[in-house]
Amino acid sequence: MNSEMLIRITRYYRALNKLRTIGLEKVFAHNLADAAGVSAAIVRKDFSQLNIHGQKRGGYEIIELISALGKILGKGEPENLVVVGCGRIGKALIHYSGFENDGLNIIAGFDNNIDLISDDRNNVPIYPISKFKEFCEQHNVQVAIIAVPESSAQDTYTHILDCNIKGILNFTPITLRPVPTKDGSIPVVHNINIGLELEQIFYELKFPKK
Amino acid sequence: MNSEMLIRITRYYRALNKLRTIGLEKVFAHNLADAAGVSAAIVRKDFSQLNIHGQKRGGYEIIELISALGKILGKGEPENLVVVGCGRIGKALIHYSGFENDGLNIIAGFDNNIDLISDDRNNVPIYPISKFKEFCEQHNVQVAIIAVPESSAQDTYTHILDCNIKGILNFTPITLRPVPTKDGSIPVVHNINIGLELEQIFYELKFPKK
Repeated sequence: MNSEMLIRITRYYRALNKLRTIGLEKVFAHNLADAAGVSAAIVRKDFSQLNIHGQKRGGYEIIELISALGKILGKGEPENLVVVGCGRIGKALIHYSGFENDGLNIIAGFDNNIDLISDDRNNVPIYPISKFKEFCEQHNVQVAIIAVPESSAQDTYTHILDCNIKGILNFTPITLRPVPTKDGSIPVVHNINIGLELEQIFYELKFPKK
Repeated sequence: MNSEMLIRITRYYRALNKLRTIGLEKVFAHNLADAAGVSAAIVRKDFSQLNIHGQKRGGYEIIELISALGKILGKGEPENLVVVGCGRIGKALIHYSGFENDGLNIIAGFDNNIDLISDDRNNVPIYPISKFKEFCEQHNVQVAIIAVPESSAQDTYTHILDCNIKGILNFTPITLRPVPTKDGSIPVVHNINIGLELEQIFYELKFPKK
């Protein structure tokens, strides 16, 4: 499956879970097309390629689709992850409630600023970075969000790779590149560069595509 | 110029500005390659395509490069933008200081929650949404970040397009699509879907690319 199809399948899956929570039982290709920003023809083509077939009278059972797409996406238990860097952006992510619907679970934050450290049992605890390795080993955490200041980005990246983190979502303006770790594996790194996105928007407004 | 080259040029430009602030005068293709995550050969190919040539002894003058790339990127005055939705994510963006180095300037926030409204002259002011149109007209604002709750995303999008916003960076999980506005123009919309990025990372860890 190529990455564009993966993004579509993930979008269908998320839309289906939302439709189920509002009580729907059946869905049509054009509903999913709207949610994923594609045409209904592409939805039908994707499903046909995945060997998923609709009902005779048209449409798909939502429960069956969720189960079929969930298997393809490897869904099961909620996915645990942590946030490194608990300034404004990091804290905003820790408190964002939308992830739970997607089966994503932020279980801890880490920061070197002792004013931010807290172990409030009602919330997501924030620990000093020195506890990172131990915590991730104990809780089998493989994915981390990096939201540290730009000046600490590269060091943080090196450190968490040493702690056996395999997947990283990077919010710093530094572009982190996937380099092989000690055990020879290559981490999965996604960079979200907000400044760069904004600059591109201004550029596209100044020089519209033909 | 295709969008991948645009991203590289923007990265070179940002790296050059940083190198200048730390006092460097000259830069080599491999320095920029490191900053942009590409090979030095690609840097040289990009520059040759843009008709930018290095010095006989190798390397480029940073000042000259910044000027040449700045012209290509349409850089001039700082770019003003606003944030709609001043919850945790919106506020984190408003207070993020890294944009200034990139010539980006968040000049106001907007929210319907009156507890968030403030007109503190020392900070970025936050106004009620009812002031949005007037403010953007007065300050000639064309770009907005949307950081409202998912349930308000579509309405906010429709509203700000009506207020003549042409460029949008969307942080809500709803995928906003560029639809023609009243005046027939098509807005530039970039969607940053944090949950989707995380899901893709977990997927790629489960099913590594060959």
